[in-house]
Amino acid sequence: MTSELRMNGERLMASLYELGAIGALPQGGVCRLALSDEDRQGRDWAVARMQALGLSVTVDAIGNTVGVYPGLTDTPPVMMGSHIDTVATGGLYDGNYGVLSGLEVIATLKDAGMRLRRPVAVAFFTNEEGSRFQPDMMGSLVYQGGLALETALATRGIDGVTVGDALRQIGYAGPASVGDNRVDSYFELHIEQGPVLDEEGLAIGVVDGVQGISWTEFHLQGVSNHAGTTPMRLRHDAGYVAARIGVFARQLAQELGGDQVATVGHLVFTPNLVNVIPDTVTLTVDLRNTDAEALRLAEQRLWAFAEQAAHEEGISVSRNMLARFEPTPFAPEMVELVAAQARLRGLPSRRMPSGAGHDAQIMAAMCPAGMIFVPSVAGLSHNINEFTAPQDLIAGANVLLGAVVQRADRA
Amino acid sequence: MTSELRMNGERLMASLYELGAIGALPQGGVCRLALSDEDRQGRDWAVARMQALGLSVTVDAIGNTVGVYPGLTDTPPVMMGSHIDTVATGGLYDGNYGVLSGLEVIATLKDAGMRLRRPVAVAFFTNEEGSRFQPDMMGSLVYQGGLALETALATRGIDGVTVGDALRQIGYAGPASVGDNRVDSYFELHIEQGPVLDEEGLAIGVVDGVQGISWTEFHLQGVSNHAGTTPMRLRHDAGYVAARIGVFARQLAQELGGDQVATVGHLVFTPNLVNVIPDTVTLTVDLRNTDAEALRLAEQRLWAFAEQAAHEEGISVSRNMLARFEPTPFAPEMVELVAAQARLRGLPSRRMPSGAGHDAQIMAAMCPAGMIFVPSVAGLSHNINEFTAPQDLIAGANVLLGAVVQRADRA
Repeated sequence: MTSELRMNGERLMASLYELGAIGALPQGGVCRLALSDEDRQGRDWAVARMQALGLSVTVDAIGNTVGVYPGLTDTPPVMMGSHIDTVATGGLYDGNYGVLSGLEVIATLKDAGMRLRRPVAVAFFTNEEGSRFQPDMMGSLVYQGGLALETALATRGIDGVTVGDALRQIGYAGPASVGDNRVDSYFELHIEQGPVLDEEGLAIGVVDGVQGISWTEFHLQGVSNHAGTTPMRLRHDAGYVAARIGVFARQLAQELGGDQVATVGHLVFTPNLVNVIPDTVTLTVDLRNTDAEALRLAEQRLWAFAEQAAHEEGISVSRNMLARFEPTPFAPEMVELVAAQARLRGLPSRRMPSGAGHDAQIMAAMCPAGMIFVPSVAGLSHNINEFTAPQDLIAGANVLLGAVVQRADRA
Repeated sequence: MTSELRMNGERLMASLYELGAIGALPQGGVCRLALSDEDRQGRDWAVARMQALGLSVTVDAIGNTVGVYPGLTDTPPVMMGSHIDTVATGGLYDGNYGVLSGLEVIATLKDAGMRLRRPVAVAFFTNEEGSRFQPDMMGSLVYQGGLALETALATRGIDGVTVGDALRQIGYAGPASVGDNRVDSYFELHIEQGPVLDEEGLAIGVVDGVQGISWTEFHLQGVSNHAGTTPMRLRHDAGYVAARIGVFARQLAQELGGDQVATVGHLVFTPNLVNVIPDTVTLTVDLRNTDAEALRLAEQRLWAFAEQAAHEEGISVSRNMLARFEPTPFAPEMVELVAAQARLRGLPSRRMPSGAGHDAQIMAAMCPAGMIFVPSVAGLSHNINEFTAPQDLIAGANVLLGAVVQRADRA
C-alpha cells in the first residue's frame, strides 16, 4: 500500500536547510547562479548525497547530473528532477525542493528495502533559471535534444564566460553523452510560484500542463507636441494608444476566461516629460494560455486591436515577438497518477496549469511528464522571502513518492 | 489712419536673423540660456538697437531691460515685450519676435515722425524660459511684484550659479528698482507654439487668455507578481490602473470640450520587466483650461476616477501637485483692439487661448494685457526647426503696430 509509505519529513527539511546554506545571502535567501562556485558547492553536496544513497551517478557534457536507483529490470528509469541553480535573489525551495524530495523518495525506498520494477532516477539539470546564461532550461533542453550541445557550450553569460569554460572551471563538464537518453517518464515537484493554492487553501496542485507564452513588444510612433498648445483633435499621442492597449489586454483576458492571462509589464515613454505629448512608447504584452488555439486567438485579437487603436490616433505601430512557446500539455496518465495520490492521502487539490517554465515542459517532448505543485505563501517567487510551510513541503513530497512508486512498479 | 501705417518688413526679418546669429547652433537653431554669455551678447545687441533709436534705456535689478519712446504726455507707457533668452535647442522666433517687433514698431513711429499721447516702451524680461533657472517668467514676475527680488537673485541654476552672480557676471544687475513700476498696458506678440493657426490657415490668433495649468503626479502602489502564475482575479496591477487613467484623461478632455486639454506625458513602470506585474507606476496628468471653474471640475473628476480605479484594483494611490496656475483672462478692451486690427488689415483670425506660459500672463496682474499669435508651422516649438513664414511675421508685427498706436493714442 503506497498510501502507507511516508518519507522522513524532518530529514527532507534538514536537507533543504543544508543546501540553502550554500550561497546563503546575508539578508536571507540564496544566490547560486548557474555554474558559479556556489553552484559547484551545491552540486558537490548533492552528488555526495547521491553517492551516500549508493546511486550510480553520471554527469553529462552539459553538467546535468543523474543518480539512478536500480529496479528489478534494466529498463529506462522513472525520473524525478528539477534544478539547484537559483536566481540572484532566490529562495530555499525553487528547484531544490524537487531535487531533494527526489533524493528522499529514493532514501525512503532504500530504508524500506524496496526495489520497484523499473529503476528510479533523480536528476538536476544545468542552468534552469537562465539568470547567468540564456536560454533558461538549458540543461534539460540539451538532455532532450532540443538544443545542440555545441551551441549551449558556446553561450556567453552576462559575465562574458562561456558555458563550456564555466563547466570546466567547476569540474562539471562530465563524460556522459547527451544524444541518446532514454527515460520512462518524468515527475517534477515544485513550489507553485504563484498565489492560487495559498489563496484557495489547497495542499496540492495537479499540474495538467505548462502555459504557452507569447511576448509581443509594440513600438508606437506618434508625434511629440506641446501639452498646452496642441488641441486634442490634432494629437498623435503614442501614450494614449499604449493606455488603450493596457486596458484592452485586461479585457481580453477576462473575455477569453479559462487560464488566459495578459500582462503589460514593460512600458517606456519618450521623451517622458510632464508637458510633452509622448511621441514614442515601447510596451510589452505577455499572453499565456494552456490552450494553443486560445493563445493564438488572444494574439490575433491583441494585434488587431493595437493596429486599430494606432490607426484611430494616426500613429504607426510595429511589433516584435520577444518570445513564443506553444503550450505543453502533460500526459493524462501522469496527471491522473498525481491526482490519485492527492486523493488517496486526503490532500485537497486542484488541477491547474503552470504559468512559469520548468524542465518538465522540456522533458515532456521525450517522455510522459507530470508536475506536482505545493503552495507558495503569497505567491512569492524569485524572492528571498519565498516560503512554503514544512507540512506542505512534506505532503507534496509524499505525493511524489506515491506517484513514482505507482509509475515505476506498474506492469 | 493706422491701417496705412506699415512697418519695414525686411528690416524686421534682418533683425531676427541678426539676433539669431548670436548663440547659433551648428545644426541650426539657437542656444542663449538665460544670463549666459550668449544671452549677454544678445542683450548688448538689443540695447544697442534701443540706443540707436534714441530710447531711454533702463536695466533693473533682475536684468529686465526697458527702452522708452516718449509720448506727448508724461504718463505710464504702453509696453510691448517678451524675452530674448532661449531654451537649449531654441529657434529664432520664440520671444525674440515680440521684442524685435516692438523695436520695429517704435522705429516705424520714429521714421514717420509720430509721437503718440502716451509713451511707448519695449521690454525684454529676464529668464522667461526657465531652462537654466526656475521658475520660468522670473523677470516679469519680479517686475510685477509676484516674486521677491531677493528670492529670485538667490535662485541657483542647473549649473549651481545663482541668478545674482550670473547677472553681475554679464553686467546686467542694473540700477533700476523693481518695486514701483507703472505701466498703462502690455502687448505681447508671439509665435503660437501650437498647430492651430497653421492647421486652420489663419494669420492671426487673437489671444483671449492663458490657460490655467494643473499638473498632478499620481503614485500607484500595487503588488508585483509573476505574469504567468498570477490569475487575473488576484492581481493588483499598478500598470493597469495607469492605463485606465490614461484612457480616462482623453475621455475627460473630450467630454468637457472647449479648450480643455489633458496629457499623460510622464509615466514610469517599476520593475518594468516583461514577465512581472508592475507594482509601482508614477504618472503625470497635465490639465489645462482657460476657464477656472472647468479646470477645477476636470481636476476633481480626474482625482475621483484615479481613486475609484485604484480601489477597484485593490491598490493604493497618492497624488502630488507638481504645478497649479489659475487661468489668466486678458482684458477685453485689449483683446478687442487686437481683433479690430486683424479685421482692419484683412487678416483671417480667430480667438484662442494660449496653451503655453508667457510674460503677458504675469503682466496681466498689474495692467490690461493682451497677446497676438502668428502661426507656427506644424506647431513646432522649443525646437531648432521652429518656423514662421516672413509674411506671417510681418503681418503680426503690423497688427501689433496698429494696436499699440490705437492704445497709446487713446483719449
